[in-house]
Amino acid sequence: MAAMYLKIKSDLFEKINNGTYKEGDLIPTEIELAEYYNVSRPTVRQAIQILVDDGYLEKRRKRGTMVCQKKIEQEFTQKILSFDAEMNEKGLTTSTKVISSTIEDASEEVASTLGISLSDKVCKLIRLRYINSKPNVIVTTYIPYNQFPDIKNVNFINSRLYDYFSHKGNPVTRIKRKLETIKADNTTASLLDIQENDPVFYFHSYGYGNDNKVIEYSISKYRGDINYFVFDLCR
Amino acid sequence: MAAMYLKIKSDLFEKINNGTYKEGDLIPTEIELAEYYNVSRPTVRQAIQILVDDGYLEKRRKRGTMVCQKKIEQEFTQKILSFDAEMNEKGLTTSTKVISSTIEDASEEVASTLGISLSDKVCKLIRLRYINSKPNVIVTTYIPYNQFPDIKNVNFINSRLYDYFSHKGNPVTRIKRKLETIKADNTTASLLDIQENDPVFYFHSYGYGNDNKVIEYSISKYRGDINYFVFDLCR
Repeated sequence: MAAMYLKIKSDLFEKINNGTYKEGDLIPTEIELAEYYNVSRPTVRQAIQILVDDGYLEKRRKRGTMVCQKKIEQEFTQKILSFDAEMNEKGLTTSTKVISSTIEDASEEVASTLGISLSDKVCKLIRLRYINSKPNVIVTTYIPYNQFPDIKNVNFINSRLYDYFSHKGNPVTRIKRKLETIKADNTTASLLDIQENDPVFYFHSYGYGNDNKVIEYSISKYRGDINYFVFDLCR
Repeated sequence: MAAMYLKIKSDLFEKINNGTYKEGDLIPTEIELAEYYNVSRPTVRQAIQILVDDGYLEKRRKRGTMVCQKKIEQEFTQKILSFDAEMNEKGLTTSTKVISSTIEDASEEVASTLGISLSDKVCKLIRLRYINSKPNVIVTTYIPYNQFPDIKNVNFINSRLYDYFSHKGNPVTRIKRKLETIKADNTTASLLDIQENDPVFYFHSYGYGNDNKVIEYSISKYRGDINYFVFDLCR
């Protein structure tokens, strides 16, 4: 016998999935649900808390409990595709804000990752990317400037980095990624419009071009509440 | 010019990586570091906070700031391998605590995932898996009981689920996984020995056996602080 709060959780989950409760709707109050399921309020609260933790519901101060936006399926870990290209394939609208684009000295870490010397310059690009007008991911990218000196002329509001590399005859053909999960710091939280300490997906990516050289080193922070990643593995 | 706190962060990071500061060691105090780098304490604190957020350092009440255990590389998202098999390949010691193992009625969600009817039974297995004696991941697994009635005799302290399926002539040959990141609830936190609301990797996995049928449905919660996942993508 499953505990009562788990049954209520499953029932609420079912109602979110089948559209009885729609995205952005408030679900009934704790009192109403306690009456409906004939249980105590703490039992209802326990059921709701699981769905809040899993990102299906959200507590709104003074308003009630709201059904969250459906999470976005990301294949970032499966395919080599521009963010825009992947999202547009899914019928989602994207936009990009270039937070900064600078040419600077490589730090020790960036130089060793890109295989360049400390006296070499890098292009450092920080982009905030939106899906359906909601901030989704912050990407900080380092590109070896000597190899791509005209990168400073590219307008990354409309242009895709991977298209740029391809046009240069040096496409990214292999990517290694490392994924961690961390708590959002204050800056990340405010850019992504989430709360400080909310979990974010934290990727380090190494894009390889011609001669197996790293031409792109990126650090991406994806919102944890509205994204999920999928994998398909075969033997 | 990188901000001073970023330079200090890089220097501390370098010292963690090259072993100047070893796992489990306390790093110098804020006062000592402020003197050493000739900056204010808030600047030092800012540098340390980044490394804490990224999981390299940990603040210990009344003791100071400690270098965390190195994170464990997980290829769960790349390979079909038993947890034990993968970790043992990396030279790590694993152990398993079977939290519960029950035969019960399938919930609606589990029945539809496994393609069985609601009147069918499932084996529900909850395992806590340790690496080097530290809890690492909680896995809840559902197996269609009618197809594997002798599963109740398997001792999962020593036996691997994937070996069991193989011995039955029904190996898992394809897996789909979905990855979210969520905050640890109270139970998860206490089992994994982390703090409530710490981020955890949250996987749903669907293991396919003969005739492309799902024979394993698992929900895994990996500690966020000591694990990372790697991916290798090619065009």
